[in-house]
Amino acid sequence: MERLNRWRTHGGWQDVYRHDSTATGTPMEFSVFIPDGDEPMPVVWYLSGLTCNWSNVTEKGEYREACARHGFIFVAPDTSPRGDGVPDDLDAAYDFGLGAGFYVDATEKPFAEHYKMRSYLEEELPALIAAEFPADMSRQAITGHSMGGHGALTIGLRNPERFKSVSAFAPIVAPTDCPWGQKALGGYLGADTAAWADYDACRLIENGARVAALKVDQGGADGFLDNQLMPERLQAACDAAGQPLELAVHDGYDHSYYFISSFMAAHLDWHAKHLA
Amino acid sequence: MERLNRWRTHGGWQDVYRHDSTATGTPMEFSVFIPDGDEPMPVVWYLSGLTCNWSNVTEKGEYREACARHGFIFVAPDTSPRGDGVPDDLDAAYDFGLGAGFYVDATEKPFAEHYKMRSYLEEELPALIAAEFPADMSRQAITGHSMGGHGALTIGLRNPERFKSVSAFAPIVAPTDCPWGQKALGGYLGADTAAWADYDACRLIENGARVAALKVDQGGADGFLDNQLMPERLQAACDAAGQPLELAVHDGYDHSYYFISSFMAAHLDWHAKHLA
Repeated sequence: MERLNRWRTHGGWQDVYRHDSTATGTPMEFSVFIPDGDEPMPVVWYLSGLTCNWSNVTEKGEYREACARHGFIFVAPDTSPRGDGVPDDLDAAYDFGLGAGFYVDATEKPFAEHYKMRSYLEEELPALIAAEFPADMSRQAITGHSMGGHGALTIGLRNPERFKSVSAFAPIVAPTDCPWGQKALGGYLGADTAAWADYDACRLIENGARVAALKVDQGGADGFLDNQLMPERLQAACDAAGQPLELAVHDGYDHSYYFISSFMAAHLDWHAKHLA
Repeated sequence: MERLNRWRTHGGWQDVYRHDSTATGTPMEFSVFIPDGDEPMPVVWYLSGLTCNWSNVTEKGEYREACARHGFIFVAPDTSPRGDGVPDDLDAAYDFGLGAGFYVDATEKPFAEHYKMRSYLEEELPALIAAEFPADMSRQAITGHSMGGHGALTIGLRNPERFKSVSAFAPIVAPTDCPWGQKALGGYLGADTAAWADYDACRLIENGARVAALKVDQGGADGFLDNQLMPERLQAACDAAGQPLELAVHDGYDHSYYFISSFMAAHLDWHAKHLA
């Protein structure tokens, strides 16, 4: 593991690392904010959306004040493998391939070799964080934005013992039924939608998955609201399953980091209640 | 005045405008955050550093939470005129010309025609803000970073009746005696350093200028500390003049927005005391 950058900020250190990932077979970068302190600290995972890498939330997410106040380590991984030999979308589109790993373990050629973001985030990176940082791995929470909200919800639902709380900003909740999800899951997993069930928050809930605490915020002026995000489907799946959900739609807010940063501190304060 | 962008954020609106400036003879852009509310609000001016425009602090400054809480309009102007016909540094260096207006009214050719950032910020833009936004112009504060800290200090010292409080992050306090300042003031104002006195915070204080309240934060690991910034000169000038100064040097912090964002809320809370 090599440290690429470090900044003193908000009474802690904002670091950026690169390491050789066994899961993806590529170098992977992530950022991590570590508040000052000697005691092991809870870990909050933030999964980013399409086109992003660690830098977007690290520069624009406004999470450090609340993380320093609560004593949270905040980890922001990349959204896909990258580098020579990693295949991209045939048209280099923004919504598949590089920057768009969709947090799956791909099974389709040529993506299956490197696109193993599920294994990377469920196994490899947590082990690295546990080994290298003052992390209390018995207290973890996860959140994310858009495609990364989908990642947070699905990883959270598949691993309820790992996360005390799960939240998301404008997540893709039903990828089986929206254009982004159909393109990505079809490309990475093949046409048989049975294989998509583990990567669809609504279907996971319908199939019995539960989390201890679930919170979603959504911008009411988000241009992707009706066609891609459809939070009402998550509400319906939770209602039918008896899964508590704290869902709020905020008038006027869009899909950008101006929305995310507005509600980041509230999410971290909410996670703090569950991580206490 | 044309609105280029608007985002709902932190219970207010983050807007970006362009207008034709009489002072610079060019279109100029600025960003403005306007919290919700019907009553006229105090105005906090933020002047940016070398190479920046409105977007740097708008994306990375983390000022909106405190501005929404206190009810502050936050204005972030550009750092120079730009566009066709605006002369740049001969070598397109980062520290002179475009993005480096140094908040002066230039007198030297070919810069005198457009580089009128002092008039723009002391006369034209305040009038526009007063006319177009719910601004209480009897309650203004000013801050800035690096070259923009120099701008905040010098504009503040020249206009003590306008600003209830003046602060800066890692400001250039003695441009007459540092390389950045010598290049800029020499290029815009000519070789006679007598003409630089109105644009040098230490010399303004030595010559009798005072402000009601003055606060400076500086990173202790800032690579420009010893050669360009020299806060000890501001401390000495204030001590000799009896000008109160709240100066703090923070170990480990550098010159970046990771430093600025760490102390932004504290600056805004401090301005709030003086604007109350």
